[in-house]
Amino acid sequence: MSFIVNRRDLDFLLFECLGIESLFETARYEGLDRAMIAGMFDMAEAIATETYLPWAATLDAHEPRFVDGRVEIMSEVGEALTAYADAGFFAAGIDRDLGGLQLPYVVTMAINGMFTAANLGIANYSFLTIANANLIAAFGSAEQKQLFLPPMLEGQWFGTMCLSEPQAGSSLSDIRTRAELQGDGSYHITGNKMWISGGDHEIAENIVHLVLARTPDAPPGVKGISLFIVPKYRVSPDGSIGARNGVELAGLNHKMGHRGTTNCLLNFGEKGETVGYLVGEPCKGLSYMFHMMNEARIGVGHASAMSALAGFLYSLNYARTRTQGRSTKDKSPLTPQVPIVDHADVRRMLMAQKAAVEGAQALSCFCALLVDQQKASRDAAERDELGLLLDLLTPVAKSWPSEHCLEANKWAIQVLGGYGYTRDYPVERLYRDNRLNHIHEGTFGIQAIDLLGRKVRMQDGAAMDLLLRRIGATIALAHDGDDFAAEADALAGAVDALRRATDAVVQAADGETGLANATIYLDAFGHIVIAWLWLQQALAAAEALDQGSSDRAFYEGKVAAFRYFFRYELPLIHPRFELVRSLDTTCLDAGAEQFAGV
Amino acid sequence: MSFIVNRRDLDFLLFECLGIESLFETARYEGLDRAMIAGMFDMAEAIATETYLPWAATLDAHEPRFVDGRVEIMSEVGEALTAYADAGFFAAGIDRDLGGLQLPYVVTMAINGMFTAANLGIANYSFLTIANANLIAAFGSAEQKQLFLPPMLEGQWFGTMCLSEPQAGSSLSDIRTRAELQGDGSYHITGNKMWISGGDHEIAENIVHLVLARTPDAPPGVKGISLFIVPKYRVSPDGSIGARNGVELAGLNHKMGHRGTTNCLLNFGEKGETVGYLVGEPCKGLSYMFHMMNEARIGVGHASAMSALAGFLYSLNYARTRTQGRSTKDKSPLTPQVPIVDHADVRRMLMAQKAAVEGAQALSCFCALLVDQQKASRDAAERDELGLLLDLLTPVAKSWPSEHCLEANKWAIQVLGGYGYTRDYPVERLYRDNRLNHIHEGTFGIQAIDLLGRKVRMQDGAAMDLLLRRIGATIALAHDGDDFAAEADALAGAVDALRRATDAVVQAADGETGLANATIYLDAFGHIVIAWLWLQQALAAAEALDQGSSDRAFYEGKVAAFRYFFRYELPLIHPRFELVRSLDTTCLDAGAEQFAGV
Repeated sequence: MSFIVNRRDLDFLLFECLGIESLFETARYEGLDRAMIAGMFDMAEAIATETYLPWAATLDAHEPRFVDGRVEIMSEVGEALTAYADAGFFAAGIDRDLGGLQLPYVVTMAINGMFTAANLGIANYSFLTIANANLIAAFGSAEQKQLFLPPMLEGQWFGTMCLSEPQAGSSLSDIRTRAELQGDGSYHITGNKMWISGGDHEIAENIVHLVLARTPDAPPGVKGISLFIVPKYRVSPDGSIGARNGVELAGLNHKMGHRGTTNCLLNFGEKGETVGYLVGEPCKGLSYMFHMMNEARIGVGHASAMSALAGFLYSLNYARTRTQGRSTKDKSPLTPQVPIVDHADVRRMLMAQKAAVEGAQALSCFCALLVDQQKASRDAAERDELGLLLDLLTPVAKSWPSEHCLEANKWAIQVLGGYGYTRDYPVERLYRDNRLNHIHEGTFGIQAIDLLGRKVRMQDGAAMDLLLRRIGATIALAHDGDDFAAEADALAGAVDALRRATDAVVQAADGETGLANATIYLDAFGHIVIAWLWLQQALAAAEALDQGSSDRAFYEGKVAAFRYFFRYELPLIHPRFELVRSLDTTCLDAGAEQFAGV
Repeated sequence: MSFIVNRRDLDFLLFECLGIESLFETARYEGLDRAMIAGMFDMAEAIATETYLPWAATLDAHEPRFVDGRVEIMSEVGEALTAYADAGFFAAGIDRDLGGLQLPYVVTMAINGMFTAANLGIANYSFLTIANANLIAAFGSAEQKQLFLPPMLEGQWFGTMCLSEPQAGSSLSDIRTRAELQGDGSYHITGNKMWISGGDHEIAENIVHLVLARTPDAPPGVKGISLFIVPKYRVSPDGSIGARNGVELAGLNHKMGHRGTTNCLLNFGEKGETVGYLVGEPCKGLSYMFHMMNEARIGVGHASAMSALAGFLYSLNYARTRTQGRSTKDKSPLTPQVPIVDHADVRRMLMAQKAAVEGAQALSCFCALLVDQQKASRDAAERDELGLLLDLLTPVAKSWPSEHCLEANKWAIQVLGGYGYTRDYPVERLYRDNRLNHIHEGTFGIQAIDLLGRKVRMQDGAAMDLLLRRIGATIALAHDGDDFAAEADALAGAVDALRRATDAVVQAADGETGLANATIYLDAFGHIVIAWLWLQQALAAAEALDQGSSDRAFYEGKVAAFRYFFRYELPLIHPRFELVRSLDTTCLDAGAEQFAGV
């Protein structure tokens, strides 16, 4: 049993539910087929299992250290990343004309999910590099692409994203890092950047930082932010590595999880000239970043699902093999103890994990497929529609897993009991790792304001209409049979509650009041989307069962998890939407001095 | 601002809400007064702040190590415990005739809460010693009391509880450790014990283990378990320390949190004769343990509230001082950033913490007061009634905080954002520490079966009737005014839902089916109890406001948190009780092979 991927489930999701094979009929993805994808998955699973997974606990216990101005990291990290690079995974999602394999995002995400589940601390270095390369590929000049992309796609140079500063975390408008134009067209960069994952190390020959900064004449706020390429070592026009640039590691953050990945405070231009190169046009930096943000946010949600998947698979295996206690029907101490999977509450904890993990995976993959469909479509109207849906669902895809898959990790620990609380078992580490996903790439609260303050209102609610139409179609499909009619009704009722809550907020006279419960709204909105995706999974499973599939346990498990979600989770949205609809201001009204009375 | 206790709130809870001064009118607690208690609190706060708190992060980072058969622990641990001992806190709750101060449990719990909030890793050693001493005081022979209690009450010897074994965690009936009677009336103990907190160290001169074991002729199961005193060093009749007993440290567990407390695998009798002394009568060991269990379980719930209180106070202070972003009404980047406490969602996260922490504290203190009232009462019928209520509420007092105060710690991290995820701030440690409370002293699932399988059914539901009568009285009181009528109605509706769900389960033909959703029931049951305690707090706050108290912010904050709980949390019980009432078997029916389909 693998603890990093459930291949059977991945096949079900991608091919039986989402039908990603339809992508292969488009010009962009022609030439791909299911067997080829399976081969990629085989390779990824093997490399992740052999070179990532064995070091997960060790790397967590021996995090990178800042010694004499250098970062010391376990050598196995570099070796694992070399194996990843040798397999061509750095370039897997990049367009063919830039030297990549042009695989769909839904496929590269699934591949990278195995590395996340196996050893997040190592995997982060490659994910940041790929995100960076994607951005240069999209907005860099021909020269920048030629200079920086090839070594990144080969995994020789790594990349980072430098957004936050000590005084500007969620509030990017307050970025102060400065970029001053030089005579040769380059810029000098000065400032401090915070929370830079992979910000320094010696695993790669060079590190390509993408840095948000302001030119002296730029307008205040987000409209004055530009994007710069700032390499750790300067690069000659022939691509060879030159002198050290003035990017300096000021310190490492020591985190609760994600310990294998360096997280850095970087100083630019304090101890030496720091050369940077403008990407695209001045003052468009944030829009370039946001262009990549959908994928990055879907990726965070998916990473959360993967940490939870690893915990789920591990705790499932434990529950099947660990004996403890007896059935309520035969408590005699003379009978042997039973595997704990036989206890009702252990089953509940496993089912809660399955429902969250496989629901979240479905959400991530559905959103990734929207990215691919948008890229592949030749119809402008269709592209707009896909883009709208994607924009609407992105905050959900980022946030729902970060909340509910963290909860799944909590249950994985609980299944193992005291053992789960020790560092001898992976479940506590996975829980610690997963806690970050609530915070980075836009906190839960930020996503909520994005959804309720912006996305549901876009183009007079066009994105919402699109989503609800799609959900309505699935409900209608479910009503065609008898098996899921009750759940179809429940989902219709949930959609109705969503509509009423949304209307109340959109019509609220005061914007602040309307947004006061945005996080509650986001969470309940997510439940509806996940319920919808579970209904789709159940319909696909029912069809397979009807057709006499021999794989009955798998499909019956799908239907069971679907029922679990509808019975245990979906009903919770009603009090939540009621609260949102009432425009409750309990929290908003509380004065800062009231919380402790001191 | 203190980060380990909110003295204003503690006073409110103990004196204004619970009226613990009525205890001082009983013979058992006569001589105590409020000023004396305040003096104790002052001393506890000072010692906890000065000798415990400064080492919390260091001890977490430098956990005890097993080196050459010995345990190495930071010397500050022993020094802190000496300060605790010198203040007389080891003996604070012990009866006067045994050399203690005979303080009520509700007072010693509040004292110990400050040490928990300051540095749980150190505090655990004393708590285990006190629990151990309480048990010897209750069931030990005169000689055992004379021999073991004085050095424990002075903090020279420490104590442990040795229940679990590798094959018997939650299932105590499977304990195998053997005790064989010797000619001198002592026993030889052989076996392995697991998860023994404070199981070995050199902080104290001796360690007194209380060990569950079986005599050779004992019946199988829990009815054959006896309790033994097994000291690390043998003790001469004059109380002097003799030769090493055969209790041997086999290894330390390395945990996610609680890192400062050694957690041991102990071998008894493998490398040398291990002498033990029977406590009380043979085969009554478990009943002795369970006699102490109410207090131990309330204590775990309270510890959970204290970890969350520390996180709440820290994140509140952070939110008031950290500036980031701007109001939704003035987003201009030219205006200064605002303290994050001004953001609606930050207020929600603070209010969620306040509602959970202060609700849980009220529950712990209410239950501790029941313990004291039971001890102080001279009326047998009253004692029975208090005992019934206490038995019913114990699983709730253990479990509700372990779930919802862990959630509070999650929000404390979120308030600090990326900073909260680093080990430079205490909130992530408090979250890791708190995760254990879901597991030890009976898991959440075990408590749920205790509540729904046993406690609500006791004496034909007598305990439930008692609780619901008390809740009804508070509802009636709230109906006397206008301010809280809506909440009183909501609580009455919740009680009705509880009743119907309970009836459905109790009447279920099949016990396993009825218990399948016991954890959901326990959680929702807890919400009702907490709502009831919040209504009591609101009534007390309203009265103070009516009387023109100058402390308006404090009391208004109480009413705000009460409203928060009733609006955001209480309504969630309805779908949960609906589920329980429907006797849903989704989880129970899922086969072990269905979870992953592999």
